Amino acid sequence: MTSTDSLANHPITDDEIFRSHVGGKLSVELASPIATQRDLSIAYTPGVAQVSRAIAKDVSLVDEYTWTKRLVAVVSDGTAVLGLGDIGPRASLPVMEGKSALFRTFAGLNSIPIVLDTTDPDEIVETLIRLRPSFGAVNLEDISAPRCFEIERRVIEALDCPVMHDDQHGTAIVVLAALKGATAHLGKDVTTLKIVISGAGAAGVACANILRAAGVPDIVVLDSKGIVGGHRDDLNEFKSELAAWSNPRGLTGGAAEALDGADVFLGVSAGLIDESFIASMNDDAIVFALSNPDPEIHPETAKKHAAVVATGRSDFPNQINNVLAFPGVFAGALDADARRITEGMKIAAAEAIFGVVGDDLAADHIVPSPLDPRVAPAVAAAVADAARAEGVTR
Amino acid sequence: MTSTDSLANHPITDDEIFRSHVGGKLSVELASPIATQRDLSIAYTPGVAQVSRAIAKDVSLVDEYTWTKRLVAVVSDGTAVLGLGDIGPRASLPVMEGKSALFRTFAGLNSIPIVLDTTDPDEIVETLIRLRPSFGAVNLEDISAPRCFEIERRVIEALDCPVMHDDQHGTAIVVLAALKGATAHLGKDVTTLKIVISGAGAAGVACANILRAAGVPDIVVLDSKGIVGGHRDDLNEFKSELAAWSNPRGLTGGAAEALDGADVFLGVSAGLIDESFIASMNDDAIVFALSNPDPEIHPETAKKHAAVVATGRSDFPNQINNVLAFPGVFAGALDADARRITEGMKIAAAEAIFGVVGDDLAADHIVPSPLDPRVAPAVAAAVADAARAEGVTR
Repeated sequence: MTSTDSLANHPITDDEIFRSHVGGKLSVELASPIATQRDLSIAYTPGVAQVSRAIAKDVSLVDEYTWTKRLVAVVSDGTAVLGLGDIGPRASLPVMEGKSALFRTFAGLNSIPIVLDTTDPDEIVETLIRLRPSFGAVNLEDISAPRCFEIERRVIEALDCPVMHDDQHGTAIVVLAALKGATAHLGKDVTTLKIVISGAGAAGVACANILRAAGVPDIVVLDSKGIVGGHRDDLNEFKSELAAWSNPRGLTGGAAEALDGADVFLGVSAGLIDESFIASMNDDAIVFALSNPDPEIHPETAKKHAAVVATGRSDFPNQINNVLAFPGVFAGALDADARRITEGMKIAAAEAIFGVVGDDLAADHIVPSPLDPRVAPAVAAAVADAARAEGVTR
Repeated sequence: MTSTDSLANHPITDDEIFRSHVGGKLSVELASPIATQRDLSIAYTPGVAQVSRAIAKDVSLVDEYTWTKRLVAVVSDGTAVLGLGDIGPRASLPVMEGKSALFRTFAGLNSIPIVLDTTDPDEIVETLIRLRPSFGAVNLEDISAPRCFEIERRVIEALDCPVMHDDQHGTAIVVLAALKGATAHLGKDVTTLKIVISGAGAAGVACANILRAAGVPDIVVLDSKGIVGGHRDDLNEFKSELAAWSNPRGLTGGAAEALDGADVFLGVSAGLIDESFIASMNDDAIVFALSNPDPEIHPETAKKHAAVVATGRSDFPNQINNVLAFPGVFAGALDADARRITEGMKIAAAEAIFGVVGDDLAADHIVPSPLDPRVAPAVAAAVADAARAEGVTR
């Protein structure tokens, strides 16, 4: 990479993006070539019959002699793609191919995009049950809330393999890792924090849950109507669940009331936040403005009032990017032969990401770079250890 | 390949087969690497959003900017795998991976195995409809007869893309090519032949149909109970259809009656054929004993009575192997943007395979080698031309 390739000096053009997508971003290749009659007779008939016969006798051998054990299906119905919304399965494909490419690049896993021409939860679950012998794990992707909660729960119940909706838990894991980095840098204790989460969709709900599990005592969630709490009578099942345990001080109102005296702002919606609300936070405030491409507040503005600022963007410090989590999480779960991905495994992943930052920890370096090759192996090892410790392995 | 690698001098061992299958035979790779922040920003967020947005506006762009247009799903329920029978989807996987490997090797197509945990035709068809945006074509594989006929017909009707059950039509195409080779060598005319087909399953029915379409006037089909004809009251829907047009001389009985005075024997079942029946055929008889691994009659024995003998095995001359057909058939159909694979495209494929033999035609060389790299491009070009001529392209 020459200096003229840097994003700042040489912004990416549409032409460059489209050219690089011609024909798609993936290819299926052979583990070893078929060049001779001997190769053909081993990889296909008659040799392959020996392998099929062995698996027919002992189905567990499928893990050893086929690619499925380390194959992640990236599954979407295209209903909540990036910030673009419900653009359908075909338009979601470039994102799913990108995801599969990242699984290969960072974790050495095989991965195929599976996009579905149905948005019905029953049909999605049923389809994945029928496809189950084709892969070893499922990364659910870009499925709209609140459908994503039910679909993920049912797919986890139905399939005896690692399943994770990345928009929920990938985000939550990296947010927790970044919060560990920020609090370590500032000498704060996670278990004393007041955190405000703006957004009660897939990412917001998952972040609230993982932060609660990590010991954060005071979490207030905002949706488009204001603070989620017992005073609201317009909450769906999932927001009602949030209301039952979050907002411990019984706040009412909106972002102004929530952020007054808060320690952490976490934005995972497209809603903008007024600078004055950020100014009203505690000293040494932490601001994660993760909306893409436009953060809830410009990081330079937030920096005036906050000690640590992170975004989802690559052109500012502290990029909070799911790619820090999902490759290692799935690799670790598959390495350990885990039947599912638990909360403990997710927290272990966050700790591992934080661990990689190590001595380089600084206000503008609370998480590793998305390209840091140490991250996925560290996450995989931690996740596999957690799976074994919890006894969720085969 | 050194001489000691030859199959005759150095037979393939089970150990060699299993070792070569560890971890499976396929991998998903990137069309170009993700090594820099710039690569990441193009292949994934934020760059990929431009491509998704473009496809959302004009869905036809999915063919240009994703991998699906040239992606063949190899789909099986594991009910009729090689000669092993109903061994289930997991045990069928090594065969499907082999098939995907051959698509890549011979036609440069991407291909993924999809094995289904259902054998219900309704569920199989429904699942493929839901998966439709994930691929560009469907190779149905190793699905038992007579279910395969209904499933193939319904999948073709439901999906607006190339669909072919290879056990039927791949076999039929190569058989027709081999028959063209044998008759050209012997100076015989296909339109005067008496042909006996032993086997009324997937391959037998498809061979009967393509040979009829190619102008063979006298086709007699045998199943395990004898000659299929109007005298039988135990025929399923598909055999009844055969009975309605085949067996023009109204023969009754079994292989002895059918083969007496026949020009061609085509074995596509596991049933053995008595040498005396082969001896009763016409002069310059043609014997295709395709059962694997044990031909219906040993080729050396058949050679005593027949002018041309072919098998499915790599260790005898004239190997009739589907790999001569399916890679080129799908490549040609996808090159031409065909909505389906017609009988005309299949016959064009057979002519192209025969065309590659050219001046090398001989009694022991009626079809090209399965490894001949000229075959798939020739088949693809012929199939694409036929698709365009028939107007089944988009």
